[in-house]
Amino acid sequence: MIRYLRRRGGDQTRLRPRVAATVDLDRVDFTEFTPEPARFLGQAACIQLEFFEALGHAVAGAPGLAEKEALSRVAGVALRRHGALIDEVRKAGGDPVEVMAPFAADIAHYRESITGADQWELLLGIHVTTGILDDYFRRLAGGLPGEQAVRVAAILAPDALGAGVIAAQLQVGIEAEPGLADRLALWGRSLVGDALLLARRALRGSERDGAERAVEPVFTELIAEHTRRMDALGLTA
Amino acid sequence: MIRYLRRRGGDQTRLRPRVAATVDLDRVDFTEFTPEPARFLGQAACIQLEFFEALGHAVAGAPGLAEKEALSRVAGVALRRHGALIDEVRKAGGDPVEVMAPFAADIAHYRESITGADQWELLLGIHVTTGILDDYFRRLAGGLPGEQAVRVAAILAPDALGAGVIAAQLQVGIEAEPGLADRLALWGRSLVGDALLLARRALRGSERDGAERAVEPVFTELIAEHTRRMDALGLTA
Repeated sequence: MIRYLRRRGGDQTRLRPRVAATVDLDRVDFTEFTPEPARFLGQAACIQLEFFEALGHAVAGAPGLAEKEALSRVAGVALRRHGALIDEVRKAGGDPVEVMAPFAADIAHYRESITGADQWELLLGIHVTTGILDDYFRRLAGGLPGEQAVRVAAILAPDALGAGVIAAQLQVGIEAEPGLADRLALWGRSLVGDALLLARRALRGSERDGAERAVEPVFTELIAEHTRRMDALGLTA
Repeated sequence: MIRYLRRRGGDQTRLRPRVAATVDLDRVDFTEFTPEPARFLGQAACIQLEFFEALGHAVAGAPGLAEKEALSRVAGVALRRHGALIDEVRKAGGDPVEVMAPFAADIAHYRESITGADQWELLLGIHVTTGILDDYFRRLAGGLPGEQAVRVAAILAPDALGAGVIAAQLQVGIEAEPGLADRLALWGRSLVGDALLLARRALRGSERDGAERAVEPVFTELIAEHTRRMDALGLTA
């Protein structure tokens, strides 16, 4: 994480020829790197499908009926988002499986990597990565054409209830199991890098020089949000 | 299965003192054994939650993105039904976890028993048991008080699309894998008995003498539907 924060150092403005030093970092036009709609929707739909699958594992691994019941509702949110993104694909005359296919292997691999060693690591994996990626794709949606930008941002509107369900279950574990907080703090740190890597690769022309500069202030905010999320659990980010 | 069919033998009417021999078997009042609403909704909601979990496993085990995508939609139906039944519980002032709790262990055990040895057995397990139990609980809902009977029957309305998705995936496997049809035919037979046992136990006063007689014509229809479902897959029921 420090790797990303360090980039906010004093010589940063020299790397931004198109942006004056006094301009708010948030106003760098990150959304010009938004991929074309089919590519955006394919990635975003595939990510929600994999979140749904991860949540399905969490439902299966839940210690009791109350946890199962609550997590199933969170899984429902991922599924509804997936469905709504797929509807956007269809509306644009695309084939859902075709637009997701280029991203499927990568994102399935990513989902496996967040699964972790037990239910706690899985829950933190979901909490951290949905937190980062939903927020990122919602911002990136700003670069979609016309009304689609608004609709997709609405589909990816923050799910405070879902995040609250997962955080509450993690809190119970952290309070009950000595040593879990330290283990989860480490796990959380390892999750951030991969999430940002996936986010980075999602950009159009992600190898272009400007991409790095455009995405950086967004990443800084995502990391700040991540830190707040970890803090709320009493975990060092 | 033959065990249940045999009960329709010639001496059946002698066992039905309250029903004349000429009366349509369907008109025996099965819904007088509908449990009180909280008990009905607890069971039905718990069953949909376990169907959702089973479908989550099927999504995870799907061989490709197209299958995963299609099964996730079927999982969404189980989740929506679960959510709608839970809404009914809340509407009646009940606590969702409390009303499901008495059935949770049994139904979780049942869900494990339909999981089978591979993706094909899991899919057939879901196909056969959702086919039987959704239909059964929809009929049983007729005995709920007033408007609730109509609302719950609507929640459990047949999901032809979902059944079609699963049947299509099974069909692909059956055509591709020699011997699979025989294995699945056996598996299907072993699933029916357990589904009917669970259905039988769901009745109010299920130990009363009349319960057996009331439920029998319903079971006969459920088995006929099951046979049609297996036939459609080219499997001997």
